[in-house]
Amino acid sequence: MKDLILAPKPLTRGDFSPFGEIIESAGRDAFPINFGHARRFHRLALVDCQAEQGEAVISIVTTKPWPAPIAIRMLERHPISTQAFIPLTETRFLVVVAERYSKPRPEKIQAFVTNGRQGINYGRGTWHHPLLALSEATFLVVDRVGPAPDFDQDYEEISLEESPITLAIDGVGI
Amino acid sequence: MKDLILAPKPLTRGDFSPFGEIIESAGRDAFPINFGHARRFHRLALVDCQAEQGEAVISIVTTKPWPAPIAIRMLERHPISTQAFIPLTETRFLVVVAERYSKPRPEKIQAFVTNGRQGINYGRGTWHHPLLALSEATFLVVDRVGPAPDFDQDYEEISLEESPITLAIDGVGI
Repeated sequence: MKDLILAPKPLTRGDFSPFGEIIESAGRDAFPINFGHARRFHRLALVDCQAEQGEAVISIVTTKPWPAPIAIRMLERHPISTQAFIPLTETRFLVVVAERYSKPRPEKIQAFVTNGRQGINYGRGTWHHPLLALSEATFLVVDRVGPAPDFDQDYEEISLEESPITLAIDGVGI
Repeated sequence: MKDLILAPKPLTRGDFSPFGEIIESAGRDAFPINFGHARRFHRLALVDCQAEQGEAVISIVTTKPWPAPIAIRMLERHPISTQAFIPLTETRFLVVVAERYSKPRPEKIQAFVTNGRQGINYGRGTWHHPLLALSEATFLVVDRVGPAPDFDQDYEEISLEESPITLAIDGVGI
């Protein structure tokens, strides 16, 4: 099979809407709070982690640069919960996704690159690659913890070893 | 009544534990994820926003410097939900709290200052002052939205106008 090469596109709300929400203030409406000393960009993302006795938790993830070349050899998803990643240090990262329906065909996979301030919230069941940071960075994560011993009921994985996708990031500016 | 003056203390887990959780990676345990390319500081805070058909949402709040001198004239609380604030730009901010029980007496109020990277998650019902940033900064917020028209069932406020508390921040290093 021919090698698949995918060039990440800039992450925009329109393109990302089938996969989840973008967490950013740029271009969004806000209203004043705290006696006018602050503004709130409200409800940028919904945390949906309570199914099957789940709880939403806040964690921190620190990253090392993902080694080049970047080949997408698997995707994962959480069928019954959302999962958000927000950079705590300004950093561009790659987002590789496929829609939640059934098993994603390789040609249906899409790749995006954030602008350094954008965070994302994967919708329930969205196929995604583990966090692809290209530098040492720190992310806030909001996701689900289920009751023991069913930790695995909210995790599925698909192998793409038969036709891995190479990300072409030379022109991406990271 | 004599004026109350309160000097904020550095925010530590021990001192803050009656009021909520500190969201930071420093000094915490982590485990490897993503094929060893990242580490997860797991479950630093629990999001507890589902009572009474509530939903947890992710928002962004941008701040202006709170005008000096800083006088604490009111506190608020959310009786049935947690509320988290995490700085997206490194910034020290002030945290003024009182325990959830009944109406806080002014002498029971405590003030802390963060180290610039720390976030916080107020426990259910913890009395707290609205976000006290001393610079233009950006925070991620994880809190509850209730179903209309009961927006106010998760909000209480107490006035301290009769004995406002002045924060002594000269020695705080902000």
